[in-house]
Amino acid sequence: MFAEKGYHAVGIAEIGKAVGLTRGALYHHISSKEELLYEISVQYISDLVRSGEDILGREVDPEMRILLLSRYLMETIFCNQAEMTVCFREVNSLTGERRRFIARMHLEYQRLWERCIVEGAAKGAFRKITPVEVKGLLGMYFYSFLWLDPKGTVGAGDIADRFAGLVIRSLRP
Amino acid sequence: MFAEKGYHAVGIAEIGKAVGLTRGALYHHISSKEELLYEISVQYISDLVRSGEDILGREVDPEMRILLLSRYLMETIFCNQAEMTVCFREVNSLTGERRRFIARMHLEYQRLWERCIVEGAAKGAFRKITPVEVKGLLGMYFYSFLWLDPKGTVGAGDIADRFAGLVIRSLRP
Repeated sequence: MFAEKGYHAVGIAEIGKAVGLTRGALYHHISSKEELLYEISVQYISDLVRSGEDILGREVDPEMRILLLSRYLMETIFCNQAEMTVCFREVNSLTGERRRFIARMHLEYQRLWERCIVEGAAKGAFRKITPVEVKGLLGMYFYSFLWLDPKGTVGAGDIADRFAGLVIRSLRP
Repeated sequence: MFAEKGYHAVGIAEIGKAVGLTRGALYHHISSKEELLYEISVQYISDLVRSGEDILGREVDPEMRILLLSRYLMETIFCNQAEMTVCFREVNSLTGERRRFIARMHLEYQRLWERCIVEGAAKGAFRKITPVEVKGLLGMYFYSFLWLDPKGTVGAGDIADRFAGLVIRSLRP
């Protein structure tokens, strides 16, 4: 519902109705609508951070790391498009500590890509780039929630490999 | 207001109040809330298409074309962040003919970049890439509405030049 109508347009009563709970019963499970938004966001960004740490922990080849990061990120967006739409589009609807936490996790994920590039540069495989350029490269993936078509002819794996190709070429010394 | 709260959360009465008009007086100027959204969207995407046609019409060097497309696109997002947020985030809130027209303009803009790459490839400056990769490269720019900081230390021109550098490297044969 958040993905379809936008977070601010969905009321707590509407959510309750969709899951067959009264407003009071729903508040037994969640403290606020914002908590729901936070739960959705934190799940996916935490999973991306964990996957990134895992990939960097077990793979040392710089180009293969980019390929694996690329595949996991694209699969996540591809298979959870409604949730990822909410994560990306509504990130500014969170407030206070919740907002700060999600922003920190986003930055942590970006830092994993940065580490991958810095370590690749130390091996002579990549050139060094600025954080704003890393944001740009991640934007290639993040923006795809707006155009990905899970029923389309191009699959997540193929898109991920092509994007990894663009990233690796853009990083060549 | 659309950028801040989301299109669906803003009522026509609220818009009228913000501009000091009654609901009736507002409907004298616009036929619907969706028309407002359409007017915002069409203005910027039309401007991008015009600028792209202009750049491709007067510049022939493939790399310089990418640099100029990059600068104009980034300046547009940088200087009109609220409007561009609405354009990108709310594109799926449009319906019928309006939605189709905006989608066509987006595709036309993407085609200008594709033409630039194809003509660059014919000169041996670039390799050919697929439309999905062009979408990816444009995503670098489009996603920036979510993180650009007009009061930050990195200006639009600097970001545009760095992004153009990434694009050009990713296109090297």
